Amino acid sequence: MMIEPIDKPLTKEQVAAEYQQIQDEICAALEQADGKAKFEEEKWEREGGGGGRTRIIQNGNIIEKGGVNFSAVYGELPQSIKKALNVENDDFFATGVSIVIHPNHPMVPIIHMNIRYFEMPSTAIDGSQPIRWFGGGIDLTPHYIIDDDARFFHQQLKDVCDKFNHDFYHRFKQWADDYFYIKHRDETRGIGGIFYDRLTANSGVNWDTIFEFSKALGRSFIPTYTELISRNRDKPFTEEQQQWQYQRRSRYVEFNLVYDAGTKFGLETNGRIESILMSLPPTAKWLYNFQPQPGSEEEKTLSLLKKGINWV
Amino acid sequence: MMIEPIDKPLTKEQVAAEYQQIQDEICAALEQADGKAKFEEEKWEREGGGGGRTRIIQNGNIIEKGGVNFSAVYGELPQSIKKALNVENDDFFATGVSIVIHPNHPMVPIIHMNIRYFEMPSTAIDGSQPIRWFGGGIDLTPHYIIDDDARFFHQQLKDVCDKFNHDFYHRFKQWADDYFYIKHRDETRGIGGIFYDRLTANSGVNWDTIFEFSKALGRSFIPTYTELISRNRDKPFTEEQQQWQYQRRSRYVEFNLVYDAGTKFGLETNGRIESILMSLPPTAKWLYNFQPQPGSEEEKTLSLLKKGINWV
Repeated sequence: MMIEPIDKPLTKEQVAAEYQQIQDEICAALEQADGKAKFEEEKWEREGGGGGRTRIIQNGNIIEKGGVNFSAVYGELPQSIKKALNVENDDFFATGVSIVIHPNHPMVPIIHMNIRYFEMPSTAIDGSQPIRWFGGGIDLTPHYIIDDDARFFHQQLKDVCDKFNHDFYHRFKQWADDYFYIKHRDETRGIGGIFYDRLTANSGVNWDTIFEFSKALGRSFIPTYTELISRNRDKPFTEEQQQWQYQRRSRYVEFNLVYDAGTKFGLETNGRIESILMSLPPTAKWLYNFQPQPGSEEEKTLSLLKKGINWV
Repeated sequence: MMIEPIDKPLTKEQVAAEYQQIQDEICAALEQADGKAKFEEEKWEREGGGGGRTRIIQNGNIIEKGGVNFSAVYGELPQSIKKALNVENDDFFATGVSIVIHPNHPMVPIIHMNIRYFEMPSTAIDGSQPIRWFGGGIDLTPHYIIDDDARFFHQQLKDVCDKFNHDFYHRFKQWADDYFYIKHRDETRGIGGIFYDRLTANSGVNWDTIFEFSKALGRSFIPTYTELISRNRDKPFTEEQQQWQYQRRSRYVEFNLVYDAGTKFGLETNGRIESILMSLPPTAKWLYNFQPQPGSEEEKTLSLLKKGINWV
């Protein structure tokens, strides 16, 4: 890991404060877009240090179940995490915003966003710089893949990335393809998006740029998702399409419980279960060996759940 | 592992043939109990050796979704399994019957049964006896725990066990308590039952007894489950009780995808996905932080999802 001196002092308090602000902005804008449901907040404290604000919205005009969670936790690094991260440090600090929205309308996509920051004290002799990194991403899981919407979504992400580094979109899009993959189904969770982890300053990018990118990604969530809501919320749909939506949600459950690193980590480290599993859908269905009709929209969607599709 | 010579020749073909027969008996009796739905069979072959008969029943009077699967597979042991089993053999044979039934009525419990046999060629110099073992069990997941039914269920299992060995019920009941445990919820999947694995002949029990026990357990499934159906199928229920049923099913999903050894093994070794995941319920619901009313039947059920309850 190459670490360059930070241009201006970037403190963990600064990152946490900005993330908290982004949580507030997103909750306000989602309530406005929904027009009916309001977030309910639960503040929680972590034994060992820190805590969070879990905010859940349910049974809205558009949002059937969603969570916009902020946390900032610190303390002694559990042995299991030291091992997983391959570090020997004793203390850590981690803050992030995590979002999952399950809409009630089958033409409105499921969306997931996460921005996060991790820090440990330096193990270097001079101790001047902490070890730290950023991670995050936004990815989309349409129940029905609509080409125009998929292109719009990826273009939005590319626009954010391109403002900061011309490699970001390409690298992080591929990373999302690889990460949001349901191996046992040989299908991607949705149309991907961007995903990155352990992003640190190096010769190509400084800390300031990475932090600004993290904030810009967080703030791109609302214009991107509200546009996708507006485009689709008034479309008529059938009972069969709703059933298909519930079936697609079951794949979301499979991904989150079997593969998602954050979920597994939370379950294994006795995290706050209701906050971790807020990502699971309100209703999901498993039909045995369902095969969509040849030539149907459902079949088209399945055919597009593949890695390596270039939407922009 | 202590292995005694087998009293009379027990062949893998004999075990597979009996298991196949038990599958037939159970399917016929479940169709009769349901009175409407019929099993649909899919025969499949395994690349590398063997295959199975997946039988699925759906949308019945009582059974909303269920599977009664038989398989007998053989071939070269995948590297990952050698490692998991801590053996160096190259060939294996495995046969079993697996059942999961999700009823549509909230007062009729979910039931799971498995009987299985595993064999590998001897690595001993004389090569006379193969390495082999039996495994299996039956466990019950009521959406609402009814004391009388729970006692009846465990008594049935105890009766089967006691015919063969006076330690079986006690040992295997505790094993089920430990196995069917959702750690992240600190609750058991249901009221348990019996579970055993790697059961081999030793000073206390010979191969013939173990095989007879395996068959008797398989054949106890129908009288036990049809009694539980009869007791509850005509009870009236409310929409709220149905919603609770769907919530309990979500815990079943969590157990199977996060902890169940057979499911994990199947997903990791590219098993037949639709056969492995037939255990997942037709509809499941995740409500955020649901708390049952104090003094309600739902609260009582949650309070009984604990290890170490002695029902008989």
